[in-house]
Amino acid sequence: MIDVPTLVEQARLGRPRAVARLISLVENASPQLREAMAALAPHTGRAYTVGLTGSPGVGKSTSTSALVSAYRKRGKRVGVLAVDPSSPFSGGALLGDRVRMQEHATDPEVYIRSMATRGHLGGLSWAAPQALRVLDAAGCEVILVETVGVGQSEVEVAAQADTTVVLLAPGMGDGIQAAKAGILEIGDVFVVNKADRDGADATVRELGHMLGLGESRSPGDWRPPIVKTVAARAEGVDELVEALEKHHAWMEEHGELAARRRRRAAEEVEAIAMAALRSRMGDLHGDRRLDSLAERVASGALDPYAAADELVQGVTGA
Amino acid sequence: MIDVPTLVEQARLGRPRAVARLISLVENASPQLREAMAALAPHTGRAYTVGLTGSPGVGKSTSTSALVSAYRKRGKRVGVLAVDPSSPFSGGALLGDRVRMQEHATDPEVYIRSMATRGHLGGLSWAAPQALRVLDAAGCEVILVETVGVGQSEVEVAAQADTTVVLLAPGMGDGIQAAKAGILEIGDVFVVNKADRDGADATVRELGHMLGLGESRSPGDWRPPIVKTVAARAEGVDELVEALEKHHAWMEEHGELAARRRRRAAEEVEAIAMAALRSRMGDLHGDRRLDSLAERVASGALDPYAAADELVQGVTGA
Repeated sequence: MIDVPTLVEQARLGRPRAVARLISLVENASPQLREAMAALAPHTGRAYTVGLTGSPGVGKSTSTSALVSAYRKRGKRVGVLAVDPSSPFSGGALLGDRVRMQEHATDPEVYIRSMATRGHLGGLSWAAPQALRVLDAAGCEVILVETVGVGQSEVEVAAQADTTVVLLAPGMGDGIQAAKAGILEIGDVFVVNKADRDGADATVRELGHMLGLGESRSPGDWRPPIVKTVAARAEGVDELVEALEKHHAWMEEHGELAARRRRRAAEEVEAIAMAALRSRMGDLHGDRRLDSLAERVASGALDPYAAADELVQGVTGA
Repeated sequence: MIDVPTLVEQARLGRPRAVARLISLVENASPQLREAMAALAPHTGRAYTVGLTGSPGVGKSTSTSALVSAYRKRGKRVGVLAVDPSSPFSGGALLGDRVRMQEHATDPEVYIRSMATRGHLGGLSWAAPQALRVLDAAGCEVILVETVGVGQSEVEVAAQADTTVVLLAPGMGDGIQAAKAGILEIGDVFVVNKADRDGADATVRELGHMLGLGESRSPGDWRPPIVKTVAARAEGVDELVEALEKHHAWMEEHGELAARRRRRAAEEVEAIAMAALRSRMGDLHGDRRLDSLAERVASGALDPYAAADELVQGVTGA
């Protein structure tokens, strides 16, 4: 058994090993997670979180690393959470294999953790917010959430942050892909990375068109800016930080930051409650009971609603 | 109010309007769905369902139409369910706009229905099986489930069928895309359509390699066949029907058909039960209660597990 109070105390003092072990509790959906979250809760709610999403090849990892440098220059303690929803294997400790991140690996004010969430009990709706809570309690002022791997869940992970950055690169037909994937709607700030390449300005124009930036909006509405960067050479990264700070300030001014955090917390609480009810359904009936109901439904002897009633009755006693 | 018993009676007699109206009940998640499913249940469990999936452009719709013709030649009553998980708008009645299907539109032994499921309360896990139950009770011996639009949910829809057909076309780099999307694992039968194009044999080879068809398997294991078709000219379609019949027979022989149907029914029942519990959570607490819990979690005053406990207690009384 892990001594959770001591672990939380050490994480709050900024001990990297303690932070890493707490995130492992999240990753493994440990039974001690509950105790850890209760101990961490009073020390959370301070970090500003930024999600980065975009197709493979746009330079997410390079951009994340450049942002870490930029925030470190501003004296901020930074956390990086790299979530891989497609992998059941944990990166474990530091992302030592990721060249771009190595320059930060020895900086005591930077926490870099990867987390594998495939097969995670509660899915992404739990894993990311709980890991963020650990980094938040550890005193990170800015946390960058980057998704590794591909898939729809990228969008979900990015949506766990206060501000969502959508990255594109010139000449990848990315705009249309992004539109299809529903990514345009979730972007608060857009980045056209590799802006030294041919077609960068065309990508910016195309994107601006798709975002309807030319259209009139209500005063006070947030207009997603498009920032051009060459993250590998740190070009445009200060402008990106500035755009993030503007969005942060706008959200605070309009009550949007609190609203987003409430919404995410509500989703998290509901997901945990539903999982608890699901497991209670399993406790009461065992899989054999569901199997026998399913068999009757498959054969037409019972309709699915009547079968569901039997399951629900077992949980609620009514 | 719709007179459900009369509607079900008429659907069983094969009246297209009654079939259409019952599927509309599913699509709209009507409160009368429960009554309809109870009335339909005793008349289900006979149809053999085939799901068709693949990237846009491989010829799903043309292949579906060619399969309808092939099954009609064999004297079977055929149902087609075209599911569009990305659209909130219903196609309504017949898919008259889809040229390939028009030749079947006047055949009284063919039921063609489109169904929009975006925003459907229970999601795909309910909508598809319930619509299939309607067509099953209407006496369709074979039901083809085709997904319209793109996205991960294609895989889910196809998995609602007894046999899943994965379609590819030459020269689309489809094999790799399919492997990425996790589509290879769900295919019982593979089709390389547009087989008169350059690169068809290469696609078949590449696919065979990825499927590991050369490797030895246990005797009795199903080896997914790869069928070459030119669906627009009905070439290879008889071979495809033969492959489907072989898979059907293999599943019956090995108890796999019953096992798949039980598994799908179990998922459906569980989804309905979970939705009932979720709505009960809402009934007891109202959104304001969840909002207030979320606010306390977001501010760090409460941890998410303790908040979830409060929700669960309201439902179960313990």
